[in-house]
Amino acid sequence: MIKFINPSTEKPYIHFQSLYQEALENQQKGIEAISVSSYSQEMSEVEARYVNLKYIHNNEWIFFSNYNSPKAKQFKSHSQVSVLIFWSSINTQIRIKALISKTSMQFSDEHFKGRTKEKNALAISSNQSQTIDSFDEVEKNFYQTLNRMTSDTVRPDFWGGFSFTPYYFEFWKGHKNRLNKRYVFEQQDDGWVECLLQP
Amino acid sequence: MIKFINPSTEKPYIHFQSLYQEALENQQKGIEAISVSSYSQEMSEVEARYVNLKYIHNNEWIFFSNYNSPKAKQFKSHSQVSVLIFWSSINTQIRIKALISKTSMQFSDEHFKGRTKEKNALAISSNQSQTIDSFDEVEKNFYQTLNRMTSDTVRPDFWGGFSFTPYYFEFWKGHKNRLNKRYVFEQQDDGWVECLLQP
Repeated sequence: MIKFINPSTEKPYIHFQSLYQEALENQQKGIEAISVSSYSQEMSEVEARYVNLKYIHNNEWIFFSNYNSPKAKQFKSHSQVSVLIFWSSINTQIRIKALISKTSMQFSDEHFKGRTKEKNALAISSNQSQTIDSFDEVEKNFYQTLNRMTSDTVRPDFWGGFSFTPYYFEFWKGHKNRLNKRYVFEQQDDGWVECLLQP
Repeated sequence: MIKFINPSTEKPYIHFQSLYQEALENQQKGIEAISVSSYSQEMSEVEARYVNLKYIHNNEWIFFSNYNSPKAKQFKSHSQVSVLIFWSSINTQIRIKALISKTSMQFSDEHFKGRTKEKNALAISSNQSQTIDSFDEVEKNFYQTLNRMTSDTVRPDFWGGFSFTPYYFEFWKGHKNRLNKRYVFEQQDDGWVECLLQP
């Protein structure tokens, strides 16, 4: 589930929310799973991975991560990302282009406080995407951290939110004979400009 | 469905095929849907979209597209892509990095011949991703082309296959408490090097 906080009433946001509602009514599994593609300047490489979208707060789309992970480094050196959502239950693909940055520390603190002890123990114990000798070692680190956790355990500096602000939306709806319908909203100085694309 | 032709027997390919089989047995929907992320040099932008993977031919992974589409232009200027697969039925994510180029004209011709008249009419009639005034216009172009199609209609030059060859695989398997298991295979001069990553 995605939590909407004071969501934008601009046209692509209204359209997004109505599709989200439709997907929800159709029991879409993993409705919060989004793929985030980023660019590594250092390696001249595109990389993509799934993350769970937690909030849409006005026009900011927020998920959480380790700030030392490869993706965090990529966001820092190239702040433009591409986000892809596919809801099979309504045969809808949503393509977004956006700029990404860290959320406020306060927002991350509050989200951290609301999570389970297990999730937070993992956030603390894992050096995300670093190599490790065995999965047993991962489990050992996790359970050691979990046992040390108290109600006073605070968010570590190396973990927090990322927020992206879309400047481009494509809503793609599958149709018979692949006559798919593609609506685009692109942000320009004077607001969102709409167009249709060929399938 | 993905068609395997003489597939590579290298370790990550064997692993991929066994996961594919498992997803198939678990009635995975849209098993051939993959997200392909590319980089536009011109715009300094990452872009991603879903395509249907049709073949794995030895170590080449093949899908088809319009050669004048934005993604085709991006592949030409930056031949590295990132490919993402998520099979929810077995809670498995596969992350691939690869180099991409056009397939042979012969391969594209043969694939075109085996497709339905409707699919080929769309390949011919659509200027993929160009703006259009109305969806009615899309349908009109499609049906006009469909009515002109004969058994002699040949593949247009502007439509054909793309083939990507992976040099990096990550197999991510979701696990309790997010102690997800991440296996990596990276191609080096002397073959595939394996490692484990922290969740």
